[in-house]
Amino acid sequence: MKIKRVCILGAGTLGTRVALQAGLSGYQVAIFDIQPKALENSQKLMQKIVRQLANNSGLDDVAGMNAIAAITFTDNPNVAIWDADIINESVTEDPEIKYAVWDQFGKIAPEKTIFTTNTSFLLPSMFAEISGRPERFCAFHFHDVFYSKVVDIMPHPGTDPSLIPVLMEFGKSLEQVPVVVKKENPGYLFNSMLMAFIGAAGKLLTGEVASIEDIDKSWMVNFHMHMGPFGILDSIGLDTAWHVTNKLPDQASQRFAALLKAYIDKGKLGEKSGEGFYKYPNPAFRSEDFLL
Amino acid sequence: MKIKRVCILGAGTLGTRVALQAGLSGYQVAIFDIQPKALENSQKLMQKIVRQLANNSGLDDVAGMNAIAAITFTDNPNVAIWDADIINESVTEDPEIKYAVWDQFGKIAPEKTIFTTNTSFLLPSMFAEISGRPERFCAFHFHDVFYSKVVDIMPHPGTDPSLIPVLMEFGKSLEQVPVVVKKENPGYLFNSMLMAFIGAAGKLLTGEVASIEDIDKSWMVNFHMHMGPFGILDSIGLDTAWHVTNKLPDQASQRFAALLKAYIDKGKLGEKSGEGFYKYPNPAFRSEDFLL
Ligand SMILES: NC(=O)c1ccc[n+]([C@@H]2O[C@H](COP(=O)([O-])OP(=O)(O)OC[C@H]3O[C@@H](n4cnc5c(N)ncnc54)[C@H](O)[C@@H]3O)[C@@H](O)[C@H]2O)c1
Ligand SMILES: NC(=O)c1ccc[n+]([C@@H]2O[C@H](COP(=O)([O-])OP(=O)(O)OC[C@H]3O[C@@H](n4cnc5c(N)ncnc54)[C@H](O)[C@@H]3O)[C@@H](O)[C@H]2O)c1
Repeated sequence: MKIKRVCILGAGTLGTRVALQAGLSGYQVAIFDIQPKALENSQKLMQKIVRQLANNSGLDDVAGMNAIAAITFTDNPNVAIWDADIINESVTEDPEIKYAVWDQFGKIAPEKTIFTTNTSFLLPSMFAEISGRPERFCAFHFHDVFYSKVVDIMPHPGTDPSLIPVLMEFGKSLEQVPVVVKKENPGYLFNSMLMAFIGAAGKLLTGEVASIEDIDKSWMVNFHMHMGPFGILDSIGLDTAWHVTNKLPDQASQRFAALLKAYIDKGKLGEKSGEGFYKYPNPAFRSEDFLL
Repeated sequence: MKIKRVCILGAGTLGTRVALQAGLSGYQVAIFDIQPKALENSQKLMQKIVRQLANNSGLDDVAGMNAIAAITFTDNPNVAIWDADIINESVTEDPEIKYAVWDQFGKIAPEKTIFTTNTSFLLPSMFAEISGRPERFCAFHFHDVFYSKVVDIMPHPGTDPSLIPVLMEFGKSLEQVPVVVKKENPGYLFNSMLMAFIGAAGKLLTGEVASIEDIDKSWMVNFHMHMGPFGILDSIGLDTAWHVTNKLPDQASQRFAALLKAYIDKGKLGEKSGEGFYKYPNPAFRSEDFLL
């Protein structure tokens, strides 16, 4: 089957980015949200991203703005779903909200529509049945679309295997590197590895083995990266990291979750709140003499 | 105190690199090995590294060759230790060999000499007493000196704290980023984090969640790196990784150790044996279309 028309549910951070990339890749795109304000902000965010891409990656500015102009921004479910070949659902990461959305769209979607969810930490099997189309339901999970261009394709046990190659092709056409997560796995591939090394960094810190700065330096210099684990935590958000870490039963994770909680209780959520492990907008790890 | 004269014990992979960097940084250097052949190879390896640095990093070729010429290569312990301000011990990673070496050099070293070990997985407290100078004994652990320029400074409980700033300065003068590991910790900082994310990658593989290639792609694309965990394992050596992983008691590590063992038993040790998870010299992850 050929995908032509893409329906994005949820016009927040991720939905906006996926919708924009789909537009830039030549798809017909509709993006849906229940909040008119979210749709308005989504359009502005797209314009901002296009300007950045024009500056940094040589995207043609006019082509980018035309792609945005061709996108349908709507709070009408029937307009959003009209003739859609695929849905990528990016609504709020809340099981009840997602459940209601799949119940709603499962009933009104055309027969041909493929159903995909962009959930970060939930599992596709949680929503496959209520969508009414479990065999055509799959996780299709982006990272940030424009900088980290990986898309995880994660079926649940009831997904029709013939969907996988279709989603692989679709992912490539969106300039992503598609990877297949053969079984349901919370955190897909990258988040599992990311949280493992961040957990190890947390253990070094709570065990008073080394300072935040020295742990980050060690990672940055060995891997020639611009950030270490605590810089990365600041960019993920300490609240998000806490939600993941706090669910892990082992003592080291619990100790690290408690440390994260202490930061959160002081309003230190990371870059977005102006302070986390580092102070923003000019965190120490970005200063020129950090590695001297 | 001012460090002028450096004594390197063990003229293998790491000793050679540390001795060369010390020479390039203007120190007087002696490098010791019990194998005359090792000393000969060490000199050749230094010449090769200088040529590489001249090509890639703009090192002055002649200055590099002069630095090598000024280094004393010796199998005579008394010549090696003469007037040494510091020892960095890089002999074979075998507790018995290291123990004997510290017994031997502890007895003949000048009173002023600082004792450091470059051990990767052992702990300084294992050798501090036999050296006869526990308060001046500390781990000083390089990564590969020229590409990953971090040096771990890891005291044992009996190390005199005033040694730390001396070693920090020395590390900086060797163009390394010094980090302090405040307590003895097997794997220092980086190896703890590295083995954690590699363990997570191993769990994804043994759990049949994803393929070697997809796990590597996910890491490479998200972190903009040239290698993923299985490429890194091939470069570390599957035997070395097995030694570390096999010591971990949890089921996931044991399962991954068994998988590594199966590769090792087939002679697949990684890059050095021509095959590991990938085939060398042209592993798939270095091909241009790996990420397409
Ligand atoms: N932000 C990221 O970095 C990231 C990365 C990968 C995946 N994700 C996933 O994408 C999804 C969205 O995350 P986000 O960061 O964009 O969140 P967000 O809060 O920025 O956006 C969520 C949007 O969903 C809308 N929404 C809520 N209820 C709705 C409904 N019933 N119908 C339609 N829209 C509704 C909200 O108004 C909001 O605009 C989550 O599942 C998240 O796990 C996020
Ligand atoms: N190779 C690495 O990437 C790396 C990185 C960091 C630290 N290290 C550590 O550095 C040390 C050396 O590792 P390597 O990879 O260079 O090993 P290697 O096998 O290349 O070299 C060891 C050298 O020690 C010599 N030796 C053995 N017994 C000796 C003795 N009694 N006196 C003097 N010399 C003796 C051997 O002849 C050999 O030349 C180990 O402790 C290792 O953990 C290695």
